[in-house]
Amino acid sequence: MKPGRADRVWSVDEHLADILGKIRPLEPIALQLLDAQGCVLTEDVTAPAALPPFDNSSMDGYAVRIADVEGASEEFPAVLAVVGDVAAGSGELPAVGPGEAARIMTGAPLPPGAEAVVPVEWTDGGLGGGPATTMAGSGTAEVRVHRSVDARAHVRARGSDVTAGELVLPAGTLLGPAQIGLLAAIGRGTVSVRPRPRVVVVSTGSELVPPGESLAHGQIHDSNSFMLTACARAAGALAYRVGAVDDDPATLRAALEDQLVRADAVVTSGGVSVGAYDVVKEALSGLPAEEGRVDFRRLAMQPGKPQGFGRIGPDRTPLFALPGNPVSSYVSFELFVRPALRALMGLEPADRTTVRAVCPEGVASSPKGRRQYLRGRHDPATGEVTLVGGSGSHLVKALAGADALIVVPEDATSVAPGAELDAILLD
Amino acid sequence: MKPGRADRVWSVDEHLADILGKIRPLEPIALQLLDAQGCVLTEDVTAPAALPPFDNSSMDGYAVRIADVEGASEEFPAVLAVVGDVAAGSGELPAVGPGEAARIMTGAPLPPGAEAVVPVEWTDGGLGGGPATTMAGSGTAEVRVHRSVDARAHVRARGSDVTAGELVLPAGTLLGPAQIGLLAAIGRGTVSVRPRPRVVVVSTGSELVPPGESLAHGQIHDSNSFMLTACARAAGALAYRVGAVDDDPATLRAALEDQLVRADAVVTSGGVSVGAYDVVKEALSGLPAEEGRVDFRRLAMQPGKPQGFGRIGPDRTPLFALPGNPVSSYVSFELFVRPALRALMGLEPADRTTVRAVCPEGVASSPKGRRQYLRGRHDPATGEVTLVGGSGSHLVKALAGADALIVVPEDATSVAPGAELDAILLD
Repeated sequence: MKPGRADRVWSVDEHLADILGKIRPLEPIALQLLDAQGCVLTEDVTAPAALPPFDNSSMDGYAVRIADVEGASEEFPAVLAVVGDVAAGSGELPAVGPGEAARIMTGAPLPPGAEAVVPVEWTDGGLGGGPATTMAGSGTAEVRVHRSVDARAHVRARGSDVTAGELVLPAGTLLGPAQIGLLAAIGRGTVSVRPRPRVVVVSTGSELVPPGESLAHGQIHDSNSFMLTACARAAGALAYRVGAVDDDPATLRAALEDQLVRADAVVTSGGVSVGAYDVVKEALSGLPAEEGRVDFRRLAMQPGKPQGFGRIGPDRTPLFALPGNPVSSYVSFELFVRPALRALMGLEPADRTTVRAVCPEGVASSPKGRRQYLRGRHDPATGEVTLVGGSGSHLVKALAGADALIVVPEDATSVAPGAELDAILLD
Repeated sequence: MKPGRADRVWSVDEHLADILGKIRPLEPIALQLLDAQGCVLTEDVTAPAALPPFDNSSMDGYAVRIADVEGASEEFPAVLAVVGDVAAGSGELPAVGPGEAARIMTGAPLPPGAEAVVPVEWTDGGLGGGPATTMAGSGTAEVRVHRSVDARAHVRARGSDVTAGELVLPAGTLLGPAQIGLLAAIGRGTVSVRPRPRVVVVSTGSELVPPGESLAHGQIHDSNSFMLTACARAAGALAYRVGAVDDDPATLRAALEDQLVRADAVVTSGGVSVGAYDVVKEALSGLPAEEGRVDFRRLAMQPGKPQGFGRIGPDRTPLFALPGNPVSSYVSFELFVRPALRALMGLEPADRTTVRAVCPEGVASSPKGRRQYLRGRHDPATGEVTLVGGSGSHLVKALAGADALIVVPEDATSVAPGAELDAILLD
């Protein structure tokens, strides 16, 4: 390739901006409530009716008229005739007239005529003894009430949580357990949300052997397809691990064509550099226009210099061609794929917390003109971040021991011990 | 029930300690790598072989002997005979003798005789021109090398990531994407982990109707079974929503017996108070010893005063009988069930972050002797927490708008505006 604009080095931010500029959120679908957990609403949800739908008791006790219990005390109780029993879910309600009371359970509708609820602990429970602790005495003819109550005491008013027609959750709300509870409470069985993206993960390399199988000389175990599938799931996607494809462009193209029907995004690893067998680059560079387009670039970062991104197939499915070194592919996923998957879901692309952290040991050397992402451990107690392993992009053990990516800016070639750096906190 | 020790009021901490004292982590099982995501290792994993398993190239370029390129420059290049091609995955390797070089790709094994790798950008790529940018020229007879290299330059040594027999992940490690990548890299296809707990969620109440169906008078929609199922999934469990069971002890007992075969824990909501139709309490109090035991208690908290906990069935499956008001059941899940599910997974029970936060508005009244959990929104920028909705445990809309639980201590009956309180951050 001749040098020039097409071959220029892209910054991390330019590459991410290019990706996000080409990502559209997935089309909304109607999902059952529990399938919508972790998804973003695409409708303004209003309540079709008031919640609670009727005045109801917040206590186990007796539904009474205020005047009947005015001035009541343990010494001089109000004695009321018990005219019925109201459980939660009761349809037919006894009317409570003067001098009368109805036993009522938490959540049960306030019967007509009643103005308040006296908790059972403020009565004899219909047993004719001292203060009751339970509603044990059923079918008793009368109850002694030991305290007066204000109007509407222990009554949850119809509509006191939500009024009919009220907007309860606006479009854009992320649905967690409490939002799902609210949707169920107002009677919604399905909601319109952006679905979780289906992500197909393919690693490439004739040297790759699945874990669990033995290695011939020159072979290694495929780790990227497992790691990137797990990364996609951790980002909220439904991920399918296709596994490793040989370094043959026709085989890779056939695999991608097969997979596109179930993909909202494709992630490949390996085969994007300047080598003679860089299969992803070979298979996807210079596609005919009707098949889409994938651009391969050099980025001003380490690890992760070679990157591909484009949209392929009839639906122009986003494809991320990540470098094959495990640490490079992990860092590339974090920086570029995770934000894109979140954008597909309608979420804010950036979600990781970045903190300024003191790096006591400093960084001995960092490549000039490239933003370096080193693996580190962040201690929130001290605000310090320490390096884990070296800068080698094959160091998987160190990656597994890290909980942060330490960012060394493009213009730094070293970092003095004790200097502050950005640290991106991983989970 | 007569007053006394069995009827005493328990503190939140006592109830949680009682639960955690009776929870044993689930027995480990062997899972495929990707099924083990989010689970805790129960074995010390050591590497069966070195990683990388062989010396390999970190660059696309030429494998050379040091002496042959000593003093080489663009003006006076070292001219080497190209004796072969080494791709990643190559089995048979060409020997590199004096005056010879082998083309080599990233990840390919260093061939015998070679001592270092010269990146292709430091050569003419075998094309006889200026510095190369790719490995395009295959099958060329010679290469001009423009720079000298140190021994082992651009070579990743066998075992430089992990040595054979090395402990790479200790028992107790939580498996995220990077750990799964490391396990795959050392060839592990399955690992021993504690599985995700299977949680059966049952709500109770004859008044409950599934969302999507219309309500007769006195009925409400079942929201707890949806919300608690979502809570269990958010905590990492596999949750099954059974839905609402009528207020009939025999029906509830039958449903629980059916469900126990697939449950590592059971969560019920409703029917635990002092009412006449408190079905969970009625069905599960005073079980015959061979069927287990569930204790029903009053807790010094609001909401969530009535609680049940015990272990039932042949496997003594933990059962959490939560109160039925939606906010009460949500708060109870957070405080008691979530830590217990984490303990079943072998995780540290507590995982929520609690911060001290200024509450500008204060709290007008809080019940004496009970720890109150109010719904709030926490602003990390200001460090302030504001109340959302009131203290009513039926206020689901406010719950859905909250991102924190504000804790008012037992001894406080009000909180002055501007005072600091604990806020438990939800997600």
